[in-house]
Amino acid sequence: MKTLIDNALIEREMQNLEVTTLEDLSIRQLVSLVKTFEKESGEEFIHFEIGVPGLPASSVGVAAQKRALDEGVASVYPSLEGEKALKEAAAKFIRAIVGADITPAHCIPTVGSMQGTFASLMAVAAIDPKKDTILYLDPGFPVQKTQADVLGIRREAFDIYNFRAERLAPKLEEYLSTGRIAAILYSNPNNPSWMCLTEDELRTIGEIANKYEAVVIEDLAYLTMDFRKEVNPTTGLPSQVSVTPYAKDYILLMSASKIFSYAGERIAVACISPHLFTRKSDNLKVRFGLPSFGNVFIHRLIYTLSSGVSHSAQMAMADMLSEAVEGRYNYREEVREYARRTDRIREILYRHGFHLVYDKDVDEKLGSGFFFTIGYKDMKGGELLFNLLRCGISGIVLSSTGSAYEGVRACSSAIKPHHYDLLDERLAMFEEIVKSKE
Amino acid sequence: MKTLIDNALIEREMQNLEVTTLEDLSIRQLVSLVKTFEKESGEEFIHFEIGVPGLPASSVGVAAQKRALDEGVASVYPSLEGEKALKEAAAKFIRAIVGADITPAHCIPTVGSMQGTFASLMAVAAIDPKKDTILYLDPGFPVQKTQADVLGIRREAFDIYNFRAERLAPKLEEYLSTGRIAAILYSNPNNPSWMCLTEDELRTIGEIANKYEAVVIEDLAYLTMDFRKEVNPTTGLPSQVSVTPYAKDYILLMSASKIFSYAGERIAVACISPHLFTRKSDNLKVRFGLPSFGNVFIHRLIYTLSSGVSHSAQMAMADMLSEAVEGRYNYREEVREYARRTDRIREILYRHGFHLVYDKDVDEKLGSGFFFTIGYKDMKGGELLFNLLRCGISGIVLSSTGSAYEGVRACSSAIKPHHYDLLDERLAMFEEIVKSKE
Repeated sequence: MKTLIDNALIEREMQNLEVTTLEDLSIRQLVSLVKTFEKESGEEFIHFEIGVPGLPASSVGVAAQKRALDEGVASVYPSLEGEKALKEAAAKFIRAIVGADITPAHCIPTVGSMQGTFASLMAVAAIDPKKDTILYLDPGFPVQKTQADVLGIRREAFDIYNFRAERLAPKLEEYLSTGRIAAILYSNPNNPSWMCLTEDELRTIGEIANKYEAVVIEDLAYLTMDFRKEVNPTTGLPSQVSVTPYAKDYILLMSASKIFSYAGERIAVACISPHLFTRKSDNLKVRFGLPSFGNVFIHRLIYTLSSGVSHSAQMAMADMLSEAVEGRYNYREEVREYARRTDRIREILYRHGFHLVYDKDVDEKLGSGFFFTIGYKDMKGGELLFNLLRCGISGIVLSSTGSAYEGVRACSSAIKPHHYDLLDERLAMFEEIVKSKE
Repeated sequence: MKTLIDNALIEREMQNLEVTTLEDLSIRQLVSLVKTFEKESGEEFIHFEIGVPGLPASSVGVAAQKRALDEGVASVYPSLEGEKALKEAAAKFIRAIVGADITPAHCIPTVGSMQGTFASLMAVAAIDPKKDTILYLDPGFPVQKTQADVLGIRREAFDIYNFRAERLAPKLEEYLSTGRIAAILYSNPNNPSWMCLTEDELRTIGEIANKYEAVVIEDLAYLTMDFRKEVNPTTGLPSQVSVTPYAKDYILLMSASKIFSYAGERIAVACISPHLFTRKSDNLKVRFGLPSFGNVFIHRLIYTLSSGVSHSAQMAMADMLSEAVEGRYNYREEVREYARRTDRIREILYRHGFHLVYDKDVDEKLGSGFFFTIGYKDMKGGELLFNLLRCGISGIVLSSTGSAYEGVRACSSAIKPHHYDLLDERLAMFEEIVKSKE
């Protein structure tokens, strides 16, 4: 059976990377593997593996950043707690979108949400020596687990797909009642599955976290990108559900990478709840020389990690947030393009016998957005990706995201108009390969 | 005795900050203290305490960064190992200036040298579990010690002033022979004293590090800012001495903050020696899942700390370095301004009975540059700063830098033309205060 990419080439490259199964590849390794396949075969791939912005950077951001550079910010150290304009815009935006009771003092710029998570993990794991574990609600972004590993912090995880709605509370209790959970971490909308937690589920998470004095780390990388919902920041009514009304101790991670297509500049804001910001502990004092969480975060972690965040990128994000919250900048119409692409791709996938692995939010059909998950009959994730690669289609094996299910994560961001017909042809080739084996 | 700032105000503000002596203040706390004094007294201070660029950002950098933004880099994730243009420019620059045997692959952009040091400390402390200690050559930049504390890494230090030239080797042996030193860290030129290590001393450091398989971390924040020396990157001859010809395992930290007045954008490059880059250890594999130092640095640390470095700032630094190395951009003439200011300030200080605490490099008179250290007769550092503050002059007590000597660190970067006469008057006031007490 002739395929686009030879089995032998795939196997040779895996040997070069010293991995025996596709599940063992990191995202970045897979990206470089696929580049090699493209070079050697001369065939263009359909890049489902990449979760990067596929749109131009926000023009509002670029204009503001260039203006800031003209005004001379490049020579001026950013202040550790963040530049006033960004702190104010972030607080206003997050109050409008999720209704969080947050002031500018609680909003700390970070070098992408990657730094926000790194600092958060360091700080939450030091509040109480008995609370030594991070609970990840899977499936999730693999690097956030690598962060815990690099820091030597213990972690646990479970796939929430089978523990939604009223099954969530007893499952969380199982972990939290050990007394070892320092924080619960999840992304909403979820990377990789695009599930969205409901208000009831977020209340459950908040209440159980409160009961056991755990921190909730809510990664809002795809904030407002659940396109089933209306969002209007000028109404005064929150338009994305969040744990903020329910949890005492939370950290929201709000990145400019995806919502503003600003990943290159590594700019995000961590919003720390007022209760957590002033929370003190003896162990924080022992570990970091300061007793209160907010001060540790700013004056020990942001200081020693990077002495603050790119001054001009802060001014860019300040403008994007404040233009958005004033209703003058509809960033959401720009990123809605991802949902349109995903809709078309899903339709083609269904036609060739594929299904969504994660297909619903409790009883509601899953929306289309940045990521989606694909399965084929009862094929294992590794085998599925192997066969897709042979047909010039890439992705990430779901097991690498902590998923309990078989399939592949795909992202619509790199899809261009000519890819839909190509996908159609290649999935037909996929079906033939499978048939030829039966 | 009437002074500019009341004793009572100083004491009240120290109580607010919960410190009992001026030695206990961090640099950032002192900066905010002095701001309060200015507000309450209505008097402008002479800001010797601040070590920030006092010049506009490099126009070469600003132009390149704006161009990169126009070209759309803001939406594109930077690659973890760094953008090609910056890696190539950094390697070329560092080869030209210090003669290091470095290729682009060894040059990794970091979010300021602060991130470079953080990642370096994490990595070097994990090479060998028996090597658990960082040796700081004091006096030094206090935050680099806070970094070790935040990471829970053991540290030792000694003041090198009395251990220069032939006295350095036996002193280093004392520490290294314990087998516990993972790395030796110092800045050259030195912050705060502006001492510059000689070629002989750097050879000693390299040889002893090699003998005990320790890494040398050389912070080049003030690279080429020893203005006693000629520097011409186009000659093909190295113009700054460095440990690179002597040490097998080294990391050079080269920041754009001071040499290009680019502190606001948090951009630097860590240059890892070829030998260290490929050095493997079982413990690195256990700790980080990868055995070799360079891969750990890039794929575990830079990845999890911030997923790379501002894309546009990388393009700015690439241009500044390559214009400089081609001889088209004389950044050094711009920053020579600091030396001119320091010369004038030193002359005024001497006239009022002050002296340099660190006054020579072995047998050579110390040069003028960014930092200098001031003492007054046998007055203790805390008392000296207290009396200077009363006269509207700020600084940093030397003991907070690990110095074994009494005095105050000063920086000429914030000095404006009208400050020289003001300094003259205020030092006269200082002398009267001291006389009135005798």
